[in-house]
Amino acid sequence: MSEFISIGTRFAPLPSPFPFKRGGSLLDGRVAFETWGQLNDKGSNALLILTGLSPSAHAASNADNPDRGWWEAMVGPGKAVDSDDWFIICVNTLGSCKGSSGPASINPESGQPYRLGFPDLSVEDCARAAKAVLNHLHIDTLACVIGNSMGGMVALSFLQQYPLYARSHINVSGSAQALPFSIAIRSLQREAIRLDPAWNNGLYTEGSYPRNGMRIARKLGVVTYRSAMEWDGRFGRVRLINDDHASEKFGPEFEVERYLEAHAERFVDQFDPNCYLYLSRAMDWFDFCLSCAKGSTDVVESLAGINIGSVLVLGAETDILFPLHQQQQIAAGLSQGGARVSFEALDSHQGHDAFLVDIEKFAPPIRRFLDERKAEL
Amino acid sequence: MSEFISIGTRFAPLPSPFPFKRGGSLLDGRVAFETWGQLNDKGSNALLILTGLSPSAHAASNADNPDRGWWEAMVGPGKAVDSDDWFIICVNTLGSCKGSSGPASINPESGQPYRLGFPDLSVEDCARAAKAVLNHLHIDTLACVIGNSMGGMVALSFLQQYPLYARSHINVSGSAQALPFSIAIRSLQREAIRLDPAWNNGLYTEGSYPRNGMRIARKLGVVTYRSAMEWDGRFGRVRLINDDHASEKFGPEFEVERYLEAHAERFVDQFDPNCYLYLSRAMDWFDFCLSCAKGSTDVVESLAGINIGSVLVLGAETDILFPLHQQQQIAAGLSQGGARVSFEALDSHQGHDAFLVDIEKFAPPIRRFLDERKAEL
Repeated sequence: MSEFISIGTRFAPLPSPFPFKRGGSLLDGRVAFETWGQLNDKGSNALLILTGLSPSAHAASNADNPDRGWWEAMVGPGKAVDSDDWFIICVNTLGSCKGSSGPASINPESGQPYRLGFPDLSVEDCARAAKAVLNHLHIDTLACVIGNSMGGMVALSFLQQYPLYARSHINVSGSAQALPFSIAIRSLQREAIRLDPAWNNGLYTEGSYPRNGMRIARKLGVVTYRSAMEWDGRFGRVRLINDDHASEKFGPEFEVERYLEAHAERFVDQFDPNCYLYLSRAMDWFDFCLSCAKGSTDVVESLAGINIGSVLVLGAETDILFPLHQQQQIAAGLSQGGARVSFEALDSHQGHDAFLVDIEKFAPPIRRFLDERKAEL
Repeated sequence: MSEFISIGTRFAPLPSPFPFKRGGSLLDGRVAFETWGQLNDKGSNALLILTGLSPSAHAASNADNPDRGWWEAMVGPGKAVDSDDWFIICVNTLGSCKGSSGPASINPESGQPYRLGFPDLSVEDCARAAKAVLNHLHIDTLACVIGNSMGGMVALSFLQQYPLYARSHINVSGSAQALPFSIAIRSLQREAIRLDPAWNNGLYTEGSYPRNGMRIARKLGVVTYRSAMEWDGRFGRVRLINDDHASEKFGPEFEVERYLEAHAERFVDQFDPNCYLYLSRAMDWFDFCLSCAKGSTDVVESLAGINIGSVLVLGAETDILFPLHQQQQIAAGLSQGGARVSFEALDSHQGHDAFLVDIEKFAPPIRRFLDERKAEL
């Protein structure tokens, strides 16, 4: 049961109590964040980054923490999200274990970790928690909200809950509602963790930790984050050089198996299993239609209720987890609502994770879009 | 540790010893099969069906077993694979638990099940085992070999090992070599079983059985056998009517989760876990390039070594496990080898499993192709 908090992480308090959409509330909660660049005199250049399921607030190296961040190639001085132009704030999602309050945090009422006593988490709660950071920093207006993957869901909820607060939006490989294939994958990841005897209904310890469940969950994640096409070219049928199959029947034998193994090994001890379950379920529950006042069950029509100036929507053609037609829906809905929308379906082989790794394809449209916004400052 | 043998199953002996491609051999092995229709006087109308990973030889109801078979809508009198025209033989894959020798069978030398003592299984061994059935039935020539999914792999090896024995071939959602995405999925399924403490290195009992591992493996199978597009239309975001989420945190809540649950429940006690591991690994190992004499690493060029008259290759556009470009390769290679090849990419929403369920799309091309063959008898 651990939180993973890197140096340089800053914290904003949540209103106390902080009520959750599905019931329950937090006392003395907090949200972790980091920043890059400076707020200008007009206070008009603030830019918010909302992350996927697992990243911390450390999007890139900065003065407080020189380590490489999860979006190092995209964020910083001279990068597409340029800290010479923007005051950039990245928030660790509520419910995570990277500094924001979550199931791995200490419940001040009991002095023990919340574990499954943490309230049911919704994407809408994550959006309100991000707003608490902006209030803490006295940000009155956002030049842009960028949301990737799960962060794309949080961003849509943010725009809906705080109309006219943000002037533009970049939605990257996002979705306005979870669809059954993605729900099935995430359900299976959660089941692998829950079926691990060491999970013990959330009461695991360091000595008895659901490593096996986390391994399966992470590997299944990696399989769906990338694309078959990328792997055909990258791994083909290449065998491991030290083929230890003789010693371990059914053990890893192909390069692609070692790749999954390396990903699992890096992840299992670096993310809290209960936090994983909460964040995963929050994505399944998200349906923009239900969070907007219009009462429509049509995604495009519901999104048209959002009032925002300029929007860039990006997706990868090989994404199987948040497929391209979901980004098309976002573009169509925000456009119908009156926004000037640019939509780009990027011909990237790297699937859902493309925005993290195929910077060559994703950086130019983001830079172009933000340069246009700079001219409006 | 069980075999699952339905009434009406017949058996052909394997040559004893029966050597395996990767070493080891079986004594007193056998292969399960069933038949439909009659061999004609010329002995020219025999048709072989090779199955996917899990089906038995019971493709359809017949006089010996009136139960519905796994391809009931396709095989039988008046059906696309018409038992009024053809003497149809369906073989249970070597290594399976539905009557053919496999890890769940009794080793005559020890009187105990083979379990992990069964020799390493290759697709090429499965093809030779199928030939033993035809020898047993005194079949001198095949009008057609039909292979689905894994059976499509076995069929290609069969054609390569027994040149000019079959006059035509129907390859349905097959592949000439395993690619990394499919290897990754199968590796993960095997890992889920192997990590289940009850698997116990293959020494499970009825009382301590790797149910949890088999559940995850089967659900992951179902996710990759179908398609996201089918599920969007079929399940959408429909919730279970009796929402028991309140009683079981993170438990099933969406229809798609119940669907996976039902599939898992039907499968876990009906397929032997060790057999599953063997068959799954055999698919990963299969690479037609390595099994042909030409020494080429090019799939199309290798397949061109097969000499056969007429070929029909079918695939579904939504198949993510055996993607369409693999069927295109098979068509291209056999065509380059001189066969008259028809290739149809079927616009089916049901993914890899489409040939089992979307009979409306798959039956007409199969019927047309076999009608043409009938004219050649």
